Amino acid sequence: MNKLKLRQLLEQFFIEDIGERDVSSSIFNGDQIGRLALIAKADGVFCGEEVIRTGFSLLVGELEIEMKVQDGERVEKGQSLAVISGTVADLLQGERVILNLVQRMSGIATKTKEAVSLLNSDHTKICDTRKTTPGLRMLEKYAVRCGGGVNHRIGLYDVVMLKDNHIAFAGSITKAMEAARRNVGHMVKVEVEVETKAQMREAIEAKADVIMFDNRTPEEIKAWLEEVPENIVTEASGGITLTDLASYRETGVDYISLGFLTHSVSALDISAKVTLE
Amino acid sequence: MNKLKLRQLLEQFFIEDIGERDVSSSIFNGDQIGRLALIAKADGVFCGEEVIRTGFSLLVGELEIEMKVQDGERVEKGQSLAVISGTVADLLQGERVILNLVQRMSGIATKTKEAVSLLNSDHTKICDTRKTTPGLRMLEKYAVRCGGGVNHRIGLYDVVMLKDNHIAFAGSITKAMEAARRNVGHMVKVEVEVETKAQMREAIEAKADVIMFDNRTPEEIKAWLEEVPENIVTEASGGITLTDLASYRETGVDYISLGFLTHSVSALDISAKVTLE
Amino acid sequence: MNKLKLRQLLEQFFIEDIGERDVSSSIFNGDQIGRLALIAKADGVFCGEEVIRTGFSLLVGELEIEMKVQDGERVEKGQSLAVISGTVADLLQGERVILNLVQRMSGIATKTKEAVSLLNSDHTKICDTRKTTPGLRMLEKYAVRCGGGVNHRIGLYDVVMLKDNHIAFAGSITKAMEAARRNVGHMVKVEVEVETKAQMREAIEAKADVIMFDNRTPEEIKAWLEEVPENIVTEASGGITLTDLASYRETGVDYISLGFLTHSVSALDISAKVTLE
Amino acid sequence: MNKLKLRQLLEQFFIEDIGERDVSSSIFNGDQIGRLALIAKADGVFCGEEVIRTGFSLLVGELEIEMKVQDGERVEKGQSLAVISGTVADLLQGERVILNLVQRMSGIATKTKEAVSLLNSDHTKICDTRKTTPGLRMLEKYAVRCGGGVNHRIGLYDVVMLKDNHIAFAGSITKAMEAARRNVGHMVKVEVEVETKAQMREAIEAKADVIMFDNRTPEEIKAWLEEVPENIVTEASGGITLTDLASYRETGVDYISLGFLTHSVSALDISAKVTLE
Amino acid sequence: MNKLKLRQLLEQFFIEDIGERDVSSSIFNGDQIGRLALIAKADGVFCGEEVIRTGFSLLVGELEIEMKVQDGERVEKGQSLAVISGTVADLLQGERVILNLVQRMSGIATKTKEAVSLLNSDHTKICDTRKTTPGLRMLEKYAVRCGGGVNHRIGLYDVVMLKDNHIAFAGSITKAMEAARRNVGHMVKVEVEVETKAQMREAIEAKADVIMFDNRTPEEIKAWLEEVPENIVTEASGGITLTDLASYRETGVDYISLGFLTHSVSALDISAKVTLE
Amino acid sequence: MNKLKLRQLLEQFFIEDIGERDVSSSIFNGDQIGRLALIAKADGVFCGEEVIRTGFSLLVGELEIEMKVQDGERVEKGQSLAVISGTVADLLQGERVILNLVQRMSGIATKTKEAVSLLNSDHTKICDTRKTTPGLRMLEKYAVRCGGGVNHRIGLYDVVMLKDNHIAFAGSITKAMEAARRNVGHMVKVEVEVETKAQMREAIEAKADVIMFDNRTPEEIKAWLEEVPENIVTEASGGITLTDLASYRETGVDYISLGFLTHSVSALDISAKVTLE
Repeated sequence: MNKLKLRQLLEQFFIEDIGERDVSSSIFNGDQIGRLALIAKADGVFCGEEVIRTGFSLLVGELEIEMKVQDGERVEKGQSLAVISGTVADLLQGERVILNLVQRMSGIATKTKEAVSLLNSDHTKICDTRKTTPGLRMLEKYAVRCGGGVNHRIGLYDVVMLKDNHIAFAGSITKAMEAARRNVGHMVKVEVEVETKAQMREAIEAKADVIMFDNRTPEEIKAWLEEVPENIVTEASGGITLTDLASYRETGVDYISLGFLTHSVSALDISAKVTLE
Repeated sequence: MNKLKLRQLLEQFFIEDIGERDVSSSIFNGDQIGRLALIAKADGVFCGEEVIRTGFSLLVGELEIEMKVQDGERVEKGQSLAVISGTVADLLQGERVILNLVQRMSGIATKTKEAVSLLNSDHTKICDTRKTTPGLRMLEKYAVRCGGGVNHRIGLYDVVMLKDNHIAFAGSITKAMEAARRNVGHMVKVEVEVETKAQMREAIEAKADVIMFDNRTPEEIKAWLEEVPENIVTEASGGITLTDLASYRETGVDYISLGFLTHSVSALDISAKVTLE
Repeated sequence: MNKLKLRQLLEQFFIEDIGERDVSSSIFNGDQIGRLALIAKADGVFCGEEVIRTGFSLLVGELEIEMKVQDGERVEKGQSLAVISGTVADLLQGERVILNLVQRMSGIATKTKEAVSLLNSDHTKICDTRKTTPGLRMLEKYAVRCGGGVNHRIGLYDVVMLKDNHIAFAGSITKAMEAARRNVGHMVKVEVEVETKAQMREAIEAKADVIMFDNRTPEEIKAWLEEVPENIVTEASGGITLTDLASYRETGVDYISLGFLTHSVSALDISAKVTLE
Repeated sequence: MNKLKLRQLLEQFFIEDIGERDVSSSIFNGDQIGRLALIAKADGVFCGEEVIRTGFSLLVGELEIEMKVQDGERVEKGQSLAVISGTVADLLQGERVILNLVQRMSGIATKTKEAVSLLNSDHTKICDTRKTTPGLRMLEKYAVRCGGGVNHRIGLYDVVMLKDNHIAFAGSITKAMEAARRNVGHMVKVEVEVETKAQMREAIEAKADVIMFDNRTPEEIKAWLEEVPENIVTEASGGITLTDLASYRETGVDYISLGFLTHSVSALDISAKVTLE
Repeated sequence: MNKLKLRQLLEQFFIEDIGERDVSSSIFNGDQIGRLALIAKADGVFCGEEVIRTGFSLLVGELEIEMKVQDGERVEKGQSLAVISGTVADLLQGERVILNLVQRMSGIATKTKEAVSLLNSDHTKICDTRKTTPGLRMLEKYAVRCGGGVNHRIGLYDVVMLKDNHIAFAGSITKAMEAARRNVGHMVKVEVEVETKAQMREAIEAKADVIMFDNRTPEEIKAWLEEVPENIVTEASGGITLTDLASYRETGVDYISLGFLTHSVSALDISAKVTLE
Repeated sequence: MNKLKLRQLLEQFFIEDIGERDVSSSIFNGDQIGRLALIAKADGVFCGEEVIRTGFSLLVGELEIEMKVQDGERVEKGQSLAVISGTVADLLQGERVILNLVQRMSGIATKTKEAVSLLNSDHTKICDTRKTTPGLRMLEKYAVRCGGGVNHRIGLYDVVMLKDNHIAFAGSITKAMEAARRNVGHMVKVEVEVETKAQMREAIEAKADVIMFDNRTPEEIKAWLEEVPENIVTEASGGITLTDLASYRETGVDYISLGFLTHSVSALDISAKVTLE
C-alpha cells in the first residue's frame, strides 16, 4: 500500500469521527497510560497491521505497538491480535475507526480465503472487482491479496474492459478492439466480456488479452476453453457464489472474479479492551 | 445531507476510480447520447437519489435525470429506479461508483426496514451505531433514516458515551458522570452503558440522560425498566440479531441499536443498462 | 481539541502567511539558535498551549518549549507565558500566526472569565453561540471553556434550534417540535426560542429539552421560570451585555448565551521577543 | 479578491458549521421558497457583497439576490442591505456563516472608515498589518480597502520587514539591508523599523524603501521627517489608537498602520429575517 | 482526461498565480467585455482545448469560446488557435496560467510528432516515460497521445518494471519475475530491462510480457529480436535522440521510449492578444 | 522555500506516481537496506537539497542522507551529489519523482548560471518571469536564485504590471498608473511596459517604480536610459536569447528577464544507482 495515501485516508477518517473533540475521552487526565488489546471474537484471516500502526501513530502519545499476528494469517476466536500501549484518552479516541477498518479488511480477507479454499484449485485463482467501497479501494484490494486472492484492474485507468455496452455502441467486438488498441499503449491489457461462443471466437480473432465468460455455466466454460489459445487469459464472472465455486474447479478457467468479496462484507468481529498499566 | 460535503465525497470517489482517464469509455465518440436505466434486481428499500443527481451532474454532459422512486420507498425486483440520459462515455464512466454507493445505501435501508418490521413495535425504535464505513458515515446514517431507523450519535463529538473502559478509569459511574458534566454543556447528552442492576441504579442516581443496557436479555431489560424514571431514555445494545429482535418487542425499551446495519452490509443488487438514444 | 484538525488548521494558516518563503527571515544563517519569549502585556486569562506546541513544531528546527502557564490561568501584565528555543529564522517565521491565534484565544478566555465574574452565580452558567469566526470554531469554543464558560451547540448538526423563522414556517411550536422529533434521534436535544409566555407554555407542553428566552428582561425570566418543570433546561439570550449580566444573577435561569464572547473579540496583548542563545 | 479562493474558503466554512446536516432546517419541506432580508442594526460601512453572492450560490436552490448597497458604502441602522430569495431550508442553513463573515468584514470597514475620518488628512493614509485572523486575511484586507484604508504587505513573502530582531541578529541596519538586497529582487520593497534618529539615518543611508517609526510621538516623527528624502516612504506604527490619530495629522508621515483594525474587531450588527414568499 | 482532476489542477494553478488578487487587472471596471485571441507564433502541433475551456470557465464572466483548431492538429506560425470572449479583467487574470500549460502541452505534442516523423515507421511506435513534470503527468501523457505517440505505464501502480536494481536485489531475472507474478494479478504486465543477450533469453524463458533493450544499438536490437517470440512486446530505450531515431527504423522493435519528450520541453510559442469588443 | 508547502507538494507528487502501490518494489522484502547514489551525468549547477531531504523523509524507513554538494554549486559529470541510505523498496519508490524535480531544478539553475556568465556584467542582473510550470513556481524560482539570478514578481498579487493590454483599456499609461496607485498600497511596486520613447517618458512622468523595455534593441535601451531618473529601476524583456545576452552588457539596464529560464527547461542529467549495503 502507498503509505502516504494511507496516512491521508486515516486522517480523513479520524476527523470524520472525532470532529471538534472526543467529549467522552476528555473526562480523563491526559497522562494515564493504558494498554489496548485487540482480540479476535471469531475465526478468520487477519488483515490490517499498517492501519493499526499508522492509525494509532497519528493520535496516541507514548505509543508502543506489539503485533501478535501478521497480515494474511488465520486467527482463532479468542486469539490476541495486537497490544497497543499509550495514553488512555488517545487510545479510546482512535479505537473505533481502526476497528471499523480492520474488521472490514479482515472480513474481506476471511471471505477471500474461504473462496480460495472452496474452489480448492491449483490452477484457477480468485480475484476481485471494482465493486469496492468508494474511498477504500486501496485497503480492500490489499485485503483480497491477504486472503489469497489476486487483484483485477485497479480502476478505469489501467485496463480496457469491453462490456456489452461498449461492444454494442462500437458496433462489434472487432471494432471495439480496434478502437481500444488505437487508444492505449502496449502496457494496457484489453479484456472482452463474452456471452456466446461466437463472441468468444471474435474476441480471440481480435487478439483480446483476456476473455471474460459472463454468466456462463461451468460446462460451457470448460467446453469453450478448448478453443482459447494458451496466451489468452480467461476469467469467469457473473453471479458466482460461494456455493457454486467448487463446480468451477475443473473448468480450467484462469480466474474467477467475485464481486461479493468487497460489496457485501461481513466484518470479522474483533474486540478492543483497554486496561490501565 | 450536507450537499457540499456530498459533492466533495463524490469527487474523491470518482477520482479514485477514474484516475487519469477511463481507457474503456475513451473508445467512444464523445457526442453519442444514451440512456442509462437503473433497475432493481432484488426486492428492497431504495436509497440514493442525491448520490445519483449530484454524482452524474459532476461527470455527464447533456444530462437529464428522471427518478422513478423516492428515497425510503420499497422497490421490487425488476422495477425501474431511474433513467439518466447523457453522453454515453460519461454515463459509463460514472456508473460503477454510483452503483457502489446506491447499492450499499439501499442495502442499509433495506436491512433497517427489515429490522423495523421484525421488531414491529409502536414504541421501540431501531437505531444505528458508529460502526459505519470510514468516510461514508453521512451517507450510511442517511440510509438508516430512509429505512425507518433513527440515528445514534454522529461521532465522538456530539454525545458523551461512558462505556466500561471510561467507567473503570474514572473510578465509578458517579465520578465519570461528574467529570462529563463538568466537561460539556447543556446541549450534550450523556449516555451510560450498564451491565448490572447496581450500575443502572448508579446511573439513574447520577442523572444520566440515556442508559444503555449492554448485552442484557429481554427479560432483564423488562424487569430493570420498572426502576427507570420516565425522563431517562433507554437503549438496548450488544449482539442483538435480526432473529432476536422480536423478543425485545415487549420489553418497553426506547431504542435498540444495531451495529450490523452498517458494519456488515449486503448491497442491494441493482443493474445499469445503457441504450443509445 | 482534535489534534489532527488543529495541525491541518495551523498548516493552512502558516501557508497563508508565509506563502512561497519568508523573505525577511531568509537574511539569516539557518543555524542560529535563539529564544523567543512570550510576555503578557496586559492582565487576562491565557489560552493557547496546544497552538504554541503544535504550531512551532511544524516550523522550527531544534525546538524546545517551556510553558510557564497553563490554559485557563490568569496572567498579569509582564508575566512570562512561554519560552521557545529554536532556529531563529524559523521562530521569526512562525511568531505572528501563533500570536494572532493565542492573542485571540486568550482574549476570548479573558472576556468569558470577566462575564463569569460579573454574573457571579453558583447556578447560572455562561455559554457561547455559533457567532464564531469561520474556520476557528474549534479554537474559539475551546477558549470559552478555558475562560470558565461552557459550549452551546457546535454547529447545525448536533442540536435542533427552533427559532422564530422555523416556528413560523412550521406553523407552530407544536408542529415544529413534532417535525423535529420525527427527524432526529434520541441523542439530539431540541431547543425552542420563545418570546411570550404563551410560547413558553407551548414549548413546555411539546416537551422541548431546552427553552431559550429571547430578549426577555430578568424580571420576566424570573417570573416565567416558575412554570418551567425541573427537567427542562433554560437559557437567556439576546443582546445581553457585560453591564447587564449582574441583573440576571437572581433569575434562576440555567444558562446565558453571549454572542460577543466570540464575534467581537479584543485580542489579549502579548509580545514576542527573540534573543540569541 | 480571488474568486476561486473565496469559494474554497466558503465551502470550508459551511462544512464547519453544517457538518453532516442541518438538523433544524431539515424540518422543512425542501420546496418552500422564502426571502431573506439582511438589515443593518447599527450605522456603519458595508462590506461583503461577494461573500453573499458566492456563499448563497453554493447552498441555495432557486436563488435570486438583490443587493441594496455596495461594498464601501455607509449604511444606517434599519437600512436594508440585501434581499435573497430561495428555498427556505437552504437560506436558513447558510445565514449564520454569511452573517459571521459580513458582520466582521463590515466591522473592519467601519472601523477603518472611522480611523480615516478621525485622522482627516489629505496626505496620510491608514493601513493594516499582518495582525489578521488566520484563514481570513484575504477577506479582512479587502474590508480595510472598502473602509478607505490601504493594505500593508500581504504576508511574509512580498515585502522584507526588518524589525528589531532582524537588525539585532544581522548586526546592524546596514548589514541587514545588504543581506536583504542580496536575497530579493527588484520587485520586493524593504522596510526598516527605527526607534532612534541614528537608526533612521542609517536606514536612509542604506536606501531603505520604507522607514517605519516604531512607537514614536507625533512630535518626534514631524521633526525626524525633515531628514527623510522624498523618495523614501514613511510609516508610523505601534500602539496608535483611535483617540491618538488626530495628533498625527500634521506630522507629514505617509502611512499609519493600525493593528486593531483587524485584531480586535467589533462586528457590525446585521439581522437576517426570513419571510415566506 | 479525467475532467474532475483537470478542474482541481487548474484551481490549484490559478490560486498559485493569482494569490489574494490580481492587482493589475483590478484597475479595470469589472464589466468591460473583451476578446482574447490565441495565436501560434511558431509552427507545431496544438494541444490544450480542454485546458482552455475548463480553465477560462473557472474564472471568466460572460464567457464564450471559439476553438479554431483541434488537439493534435498541426498549426502554422500566425494561425489563430482560439478566440475567447469575456470580462477583460478575468481574461487577463487567467491568460498566463493557461498559456503556460498550453504552450507546454503543445511543445510536447510537437516534439512527439517530430519524433514520429523522423522515425517514419509503419511498425514501431514512439512512447513516453515516467520522466514527466511532477503534478502534470495526466496533461503531459495526453499531449504525447496528441502528438501521435502512445503512453508507457502511468505510474508505479499499473505495470511492473524490473530494472537492473530490481533484478540485482531479487537475485536474477527469473527470481524477480517469479516474485512479480506472485505479487500481481493477470491485469498487470511485467516488463524486464535487459542489457545482454543472456538476460534477454532469461526474460523470454521467464515469460516477460515486455522486454526492454536498455541502451542497445540498432544492430544489436535487430539481431536479438530474431529470438523473441511474437507474443512478447519489445521496446528500445536509453539515450535515444531525435538524431538517432531513423537508425531504429529497420530494427523491427515495437516501441521506442523517449524521456526527452517530457523532461526537456521547449514550449511552443503562443501569444495572447486582448481587444475590447 | 516554505517547508510546509514543499512537503504538501511532494506528497501530491508521490501520490501521483505511486498510486495504490509500487508494484515493482513490492517484490522486495521490506527490510533490505540499500544505498542510493545520485551522480551527475553532465556538467551543471546543482539545485534540490531540500527536495531530496524532505522527499525521501516522507517515504523511506531507516533513512540517512549525506549531501556531497550544496545548492548553487557547480558540479561536473561523474561527480557524486548525494548518498541516501534506507530500505531498498522505499528508495526505489521515491527515486523517479525526486529525480524529475532535482533534474529540472538543476537544469534551471544551470541555464540561469549560463545566462549570468554570458551577460558577464557587474551591474545588470538576470531575472525570471511568470512563465513557470504550473504547480512548481516556488521550486523553479528558487532554482533561478541558486543559479545566480533574482526573482521577478511571484504572481499576480505582489506587483502591478501594466502591459500593453492594461494601458490600452485604461486609456493611457497615466490613467493606468493612477488607477493602480489608488488600488494598491505603498508596498506594491508598479511596473510599466513601454515600446516607445514617448511611452517611457509618460511612465517616468507617472512615477512608475519600474520601467520595462519591451522588445527594444540594446542600442535603443542604452540611448533611452539617459532620460531615466536614478530611482526608477529598468528592465529589458522580450525575446532575448542566450546568444543575444552579451549585447546587452553595456546598456546599463538594471535587469534582464528571461522567460526561457523556466518555460523551456533542459533537465540536468542525473543518474541514481542503488546498491545493497
